[in-house]
Amino acid sequence: MALPSSELTPDNCVFLMIDHQVGLMQFLTSIDPMQLKHNILGHAKTAKAFSIPVIMGTSWPQGPNGPTMPELKALFPDVQVIDRPYVNFWNDPASRAAVEATGRRKLVISGLATEVCAAFPALSALREGYEVYVVVDACSDFNPLITDVTVRRLAAAGVIVTTWVSVLAELSANTQVNGRHIGTLLAEHMGQYYAAMNAWLGSAGNADEVKGQLGLTGHPPIPQAGL
Amino acid sequence: MALPSSELTPDNCVFLMIDHQVGLMQFLTSIDPMQLKHNILGHAKTAKAFSIPVIMGTSWPQGPNGPTMPELKALFPDVQVIDRPYVNFWNDPASRAAVEATGRRKLVISGLATEVCAAFPALSALREGYEVYVVVDACSDFNPLITDVTVRRLAAAGVIVTTWVSVLAELSANTQVNGRHIGTLLAEHMGQYYAAMNAWLGSAGNADEVKGQLGLTGHPPIPQAGL
Amino acid sequence: MALPSSELTPDNCVFLMIDHQVGLMQFLTSIDPMQLKHNILGHAKTAKAFSIPVIMGTSWPQGPNGPTMPELKALFPDVQVIDRPYVNFWNDPASRAAVEATGRRKLVISGLATEVCAAFPALSALREGYEVYVVVDACSDFNPLITDVTVRRLAAAGVIVTTWVSVLAELSANTQVNGRHIGTLLAEHMGQYYAAMNAWLGSAGNADEVKGQLGLTGHPPIPQAGL
Amino acid sequence: MALPSSELTPDNCVFLMIDHQVGLMQFLTSIDPMQLKHNILGHAKTAKAFSIPVIMGTSWPQGPNGPTMPELKALFPDVQVIDRPYVNFWNDPASRAAVEATGRRKLVISGLATEVCAAFPALSALREGYEVYVVVDACSDFNPLITDVTVRRLAAAGVIVTTWVSVLAELSANTQVNGRHIGTLLAEHMGQYYAAMNAWLGSAGNADEVKGQLGLTGHPPIPQAGL
Amino acid sequence: MALPSSELTPDNCVFLMIDHQVGLMQFLTSIDPMQLKHNILGHAKTAKAFSIPVIMGTSWPQGPNGPTMPELKALFPDVQVIDRPYVNFWNDPASRAAVEATGRRKLVISGLATEVCAAFPALSALREGYEVYVVVDACSDFNPLITDVTVRRLAAAGVIVTTWVSVLAELSANTQVNGRHIGTLLAEHMGQYYAAMNAWLGSAGNADEVKGQLGLTGHPPIPQAGL
Amino acid sequence: MALPSSELTPDNCVFLMIDHQVGLMQFLTSIDPMQLKHNILGHAKTAKAFSIPVIMGTSWPQGPNGPTMPELKALFPDVQVIDRPYVNFWNDPASRAAVEATGRRKLVISGLATEVCAAFPALSALREGYEVYVVVDACSDFNPLITDVTVRRLAAAGVIVTTWVSVLAELSANTQVNGRHIGTLLAEHMGQYYAAMNAWLGSAGNADEVKGQLGLTGHPPIPQAGL
Amino acid sequence: MALPSSELTPDNCVFLMIDHQVGLMQFLTSIDPMQLKHNILGHAKTAKAFSIPVIMGTSWPQGPNGPTMPELKALFPDVQVIDRPYVNFWNDPASRAAVEATGRRKLVISGLATEVCAAFPALSALREGYEVYVVVDACSDFNPLITDVTVRRLAAAGVIVTTWVSVLAELSANTQVNGRHIGTLLAEHMGQYYAAMNAWLGSAGNADEVKGQLGLTGHPPIPQAGL
Amino acid sequence: MALPSSELTPDNCVFLMIDHQVGLMQFLTSIDPMQLKHNILGHAKTAKAFSIPVIMGTSWPQGPNGPTMPELKALFPDVQVIDRPYVNFWNDPASRAAVEATGRRKLVISGLATEVCAAFPALSALREGYEVYVVVDACSDFNPLITDVTVRRLAAAGVIVTTWVSVLAELSANTQVNGRHIGTLLAEHMGQYYAAMNAWLGSAGNADEVKGQLGLTGHPPIPQAGL
Repeated sequence: MALPSSELTPDNCVFLMIDHQVGLMQFLTSIDPMQLKHNILGHAKTAKAFSIPVIMGTSWPQGPNGPTMPELKALFPDVQVIDRPYVNFWNDPASRAAVEATGRRKLVISGLATEVCAAFPALSALREGYEVYVVVDACSDFNPLITDVTVRRLAAAGVIVTTWVSVLAELSANTQVNGRHIGTLLAEHMGQYYAAMNAWLGSAGNADEVKGQLGLTGHPPIPQAGL
Repeated sequence: MALPSSELTPDNCVFLMIDHQVGLMQFLTSIDPMQLKHNILGHAKTAKAFSIPVIMGTSWPQGPNGPTMPELKALFPDVQVIDRPYVNFWNDPASRAAVEATGRRKLVISGLATEVCAAFPALSALREGYEVYVVVDACSDFNPLITDVTVRRLAAAGVIVTTWVSVLAELSANTQVNGRHIGTLLAEHMGQYYAAMNAWLGSAGNADEVKGQLGLTGHPPIPQAGL
Repeated sequence: MALPSSELTPDNCVFLMIDHQVGLMQFLTSIDPMQLKHNILGHAKTAKAFSIPVIMGTSWPQGPNGPTMPELKALFPDVQVIDRPYVNFWNDPASRAAVEATGRRKLVISGLATEVCAAFPALSALREGYEVYVVVDACSDFNPLITDVTVRRLAAAGVIVTTWVSVLAELSANTQVNGRHIGTLLAEHMGQYYAAMNAWLGSAGNADEVKGQLGLTGHPPIPQAGL
Repeated sequence: MALPSSELTPDNCVFLMIDHQVGLMQFLTSIDPMQLKHNILGHAKTAKAFSIPVIMGTSWPQGPNGPTMPELKALFPDVQVIDRPYVNFWNDPASRAAVEATGRRKLVISGLATEVCAAFPALSALREGYEVYVVVDACSDFNPLITDVTVRRLAAAGVIVTTWVSVLAELSANTQVNGRHIGTLLAEHMGQYYAAMNAWLGSAGNADEVKGQLGLTGHPPIPQAGL
Repeated sequence: MALPSSELTPDNCVFLMIDHQVGLMQFLTSIDPMQLKHNILGHAKTAKAFSIPVIMGTSWPQGPNGPTMPELKALFPDVQVIDRPYVNFWNDPASRAAVEATGRRKLVISGLATEVCAAFPALSALREGYEVYVVVDACSDFNPLITDVTVRRLAAAGVIVTTWVSVLAELSANTQVNGRHIGTLLAEHMGQYYAAMNAWLGSAGNADEVKGQLGLTGHPPIPQAGL
Repeated sequence: MALPSSELTPDNCVFLMIDHQVGLMQFLTSIDPMQLKHNILGHAKTAKAFSIPVIMGTSWPQGPNGPTMPELKALFPDVQVIDRPYVNFWNDPASRAAVEATGRRKLVISGLATEVCAAFPALSALREGYEVYVVVDACSDFNPLITDVTVRRLAAAGVIVTTWVSVLAELSANTQVNGRHIGTLLAEHMGQYYAAMNAWLGSAGNADEVKGQLGLTGHPPIPQAGL
Repeated sequence: MALPSSELTPDNCVFLMIDHQVGLMQFLTSIDPMQLKHNILGHAKTAKAFSIPVIMGTSWPQGPNGPTMPELKALFPDVQVIDRPYVNFWNDPASRAAVEATGRRKLVISGLATEVCAAFPALSALREGYEVYVVVDACSDFNPLITDVTVRRLAAAGVIVTTWVSVLAELSANTQVNGRHIGTLLAEHMGQYYAAMNAWLGSAGNADEVKGQLGLTGHPPIPQAGL
Repeated sequence: MALPSSELTPDNCVFLMIDHQVGLMQFLTSIDPMQLKHNILGHAKTAKAFSIPVIMGTSWPQGPNGPTMPELKALFPDVQVIDRPYVNFWNDPASRAAVEATGRRKLVISGLATEVCAAFPALSALREGYEVYVVVDACSDFNPLITDVTVRRLAAAGVIVTTWVSVLAELSANTQVNGRHIGTLLAEHMGQYYAAMNAWLGSAGNADEVKGQLGLTGHPPIPQAGL
């Protein structure tokens, strides 16, 4: 059964963010592209918040797949995006070497499309004994049926299927220590939480106290995304 | 395979109701909030009907997650709601001690959000050999895809995924003995059954006899929720 | 064009609540029955809050259509429900006399099913020069296509199609005077507002002040529907 | 028939942005809140791009409706948000005076909720001979049925129902002059266009030329919302 | 406005059932074909119950459109189905003569597909002063968008859009006289009513009395469709 | 893994049809009741076509659950429907004895609701080594989420989840021998096949030959359900 | 009311196909792009089949909107596509001159996006007394809500909203003369008809005769799109 | 667990394309028939591109199931389609011999319907130790629930569920070698990619270079399906 041996911690995992290219985002629409963009950025910032190593790849960026999302490059200026000829990230020696260099055995994979770029390395790594997570909502496909079939294939094979908020929460572990990551990333990237957090900040009598707990004292109103 | 060793009985299980807080209910909308509220209350009253121990927790109730649903507190005035700093209920010593104090090995878990508050303790308890049920419709998430992925993750790991009506029915066991629990809780918390039960009460020639079986003799028309 | 001559006020309208019978509620499911029940009750309590005359009718209550919702009868103990043999409420002399006795020319109609019990008197009254509103979400049908076609028919004929919350808001007119009606009825009958209002009550620094404005001082936590 | 007398131009209209408050955004979810936020901001920036007067209002901001979206206040630091006790914006003397002060007869209205805050002033202004547009996707409601009924009511009454992108395009008129507004606002606030525009910028041989036309020369990659 | 001058009665209307051919039913699936079949039969039996004249047509029955539904032919053995070369039923001299021979000015039209076979004669007849009803749920199209656009086109042109149950109810007028038509046709052709009626017959103390009213005394359990 | 040891044959299985009561059908609507009725009847006639033993049960038929579908009783006049007080069919000695009396180890279970009446005996029988099939589309629930969760629970436990057409096809095995069962049952109970079969019969050059193969020579037009 | 003065004929209308550019097709996805492509091609071939004049335009083809669909250019090699700087086709002197040169007063408009490229010229032409049709399914938008609002706006203004199959059928008028256009265009561009037509051709006893009627004698199997 | 032992390569698998008959396509509509046709053709061309052996079967082609899709026959003129009397392809000696003759142990199965024609041989082959893939989107069923249940059944049994694009990508392995297969097949059979590829070809400065990589130099604009 696909029961992980232990919880995710900042020290035991590596994020594989594969082919988050803007060309792919325009024709893989099983998740609304606006929400997909936010899911990918929320997931990427989770890595940054917990200093988790990130490996990024591209496939055919000079063609209609297009370049990597510019925001991702800006977030990780020091990460070299590895372009590869192999469809399966795992079959590319440079990509694989990057994974092995981290020495970590828990792989947290996302990619466009789920059915190819996330699924193939997930299954290959599983065969070699890695513990593999696929972050389904930071992936997308041509249509929802494809995602549905792919997630079943992955779950049946032993991959742990999960979501970006769940990964963020598992890594946060303790709200007194890391609540600010949950609060700010959800407010920036989940529309409902944006509304609820700002409403609460506007009315809560104890807002100052909690903002202090969140490290937000003196902070301007939370996320003004898009301005 | 995730086949339970035995049926649920009032004596062999404990309900973990985690973070059913009104703030969370306003932004976790994958289940319609009106139905979610009724699912949670139906599940809670199931515990009360069969005198099953209930453990309740909160996470950051002074912030936008808000306080526990007032109806839950009113239902269980003697249950102390345990606030915890740990995201995972299972990692909180006080919460866990409360579970262990019951001596029961079947955990019936619900929580907001499914992907975090229900899923994390479910997986942790599973690793330690508990038999774990997650009551999916007494939980909710930011969107249905998240619930879908989470339920697959849980089922693949060995958790028994279930629903509040199924738990109620399994505990009832015998309609001659416990039919009144099924009848009244469904009429109060499932809109279609409300209509059907009241229509039947209004027309059935044997209504008095059956009302007697249900312990409803002299009872006013069944549930006038919301008045 | 279907532009009302003036706004709804407590003095210029009468509510026709036609055939809100529990038997009909069990097989007219284009609106989820739980939400339908709450929409009907919210609409009925709006009449009560503003002392608007209510006329209630039934059609074949001794058959599978069943009796009037018990909560409606309890809300309006002094209103005599008029049973009629005519399908069209407007063709029934007693029902029509009750409307004319109010002397009001704005009719706010709801009924089960929309396509028959609400639509027929709406069209008949329109032909006689009444200004007619149909409260679409306090009605229901066998399936959504039927509601869709009916609403188009009504709008094209000159009926003003509307919703129960809109009627409540139009009658409230001024939140300083009638905000408590909006606040309490929405919290009791709209799941999302239930959550938001209770979350706000739990955190708002100025809750006491606003509760005073709402006439809720000393009030227990707002709506514990279903307990 | 609801055929406008002329096209919208920057000189002949005023935007009424009514009750875009974060509390309302958390419980009015008929449009996904993330997309709603972007629709509202795209619409607001349209006003700014064409120097169209904007009038903003609030209803009960000290209660659960919450304060105005902070991004809106930041966009229009010089606009005074008018709080009013009247449910109907049109019945509030100060709000109405602000409209009349512009001397414009084409009103472009958006508000939360559609069924109340947008619909009521739209119908009132129509009765007084204004030409009224309602921007449906910069509004939201408790559920989609309510929006559906409201839009039918408005269209049948003579209101011109429209969308924020359509308003932006109508005001732009000529892509050689105003193409940059279309290009940048869509890329910032429509997920699919974000992807397509960035993919095109990454591959187009004539990107520099077109970026010049857009006034984007030397511009960093287009919208990095959320960073 | 599309407000009918009077109610439908058995004496003032004629049913035009156009191209209800089994070949068309297999590729026009915007309504589920099982429900479509029942809607058409329910509508046809309404004509039979009230002795309303029926005119039936076909288009290209020797090709993939196929022959008329065999059940329709069996219901109306004396009605000659008019095959025509004209797409628009109204342009066919024989079809039109059949309509004129009835001398009736209210046309109740259904057809496959809505967008062609129902819409074209509806618009043509309207131009000549007939009062035209289109029974939308006894029609179907390639996809729901087509139906949606067609119904808007018809409603905007002045056609009265309606549904088969609404027509049945309007013709029934009085439940004491015609309740048996409503009761039996709904139980045969609406799944939810089938269940509710049979449940009520099984439990109602006054079933015998009401069955007497329905002319069902000694009647076997109501509709055993499909046996 | 839930791989059956062998194919279903008429000799190796027994059908358990549990609580197909008309009262339950009116409030369990996750499958459209019209289609549900047809799925149940198609499944029942499959048993009859292949002379497979059928065991039928009821739960609380004197209450709102109502009596067994009258068509089912008519199909199996010799089968005694076993009413039981136990929620779980498997815990009822008489029901269980009926299963054991057949000596068969493959159980094909359907029931209302899936989450209770089908799921409970399926899991109990699995624990005792039976090979268990659940026919999901001859079951229904309060809402689709419940069915979804239940099917996952069953599949994860080792139950073979299937559908009535699949069971019919597996038992038919050879179309030359049993094609007539497939042809007639699908035409009677699947709306699309009704249309396609009748269209084909109306146009096929080889219709007579194939009707001969199906044993339909001289047969009237296939299924005239509902007449 | 929006009732056309007469039927469409090949002699009284002109098709305006505006901005059917591949870049727009990739981000306007309210209709599935595969079906959208087929709807546009089916509509274009309708013009060709009946020798109806076609006017084509583009907006900003050197940018992300991209060039006109290559199949459209191939279909109409002699039509010059008019690129324009004006958002509204009607405001572009060259585009408008092309319309006026035809001398026709019935405009059949389609365009990407509906809310801009189809709606703007439709409303402008209406103001000048043209009879305007918008072919809604040969258009698309960012999301379905936008299309919905736009179609209501158009219908309320007096535009005749329609679909490409309806236009094809209206122009065909007589199946004996033009049935082959209906048969071949539907088989090429509507998936369900493709299946039904080919199934019928494979089995129909009178296939040869009808193929003769269709002018398909000796024709290879109908539409092998994509080979 | 259903983890494949190795990746698919052109040398280790055989495609079983079972009962892709046009009659079945007209009544199995859980996938839109237009997209289904394209999925099937995309999958078939994948076999052709990589010279993978294909085995094709039919069931009752002389009846309403109809003949094999004509495009499939045209693609594989040398493959003899095996008609069989057995419902289960695996039970047919000739069909099975064709599989065994290839000597391959990885079976890539698609068929109409999923629940019968794909599922039965998949389960049978699994029992005999083959590694079995089912290409879910090149299959279809009467309704989506059936597909959903079937895919769960297959995944739980150990079948690898997958999609045609995923199979194409896995076989392509290296985009420098096989990118042209991905590029052309997606552009021909996925609507969104058609749009994106053509938009990119129209604007990309490096289009010539990449077209060279794709072997498209001098190639006319990519796929003009349907012309």
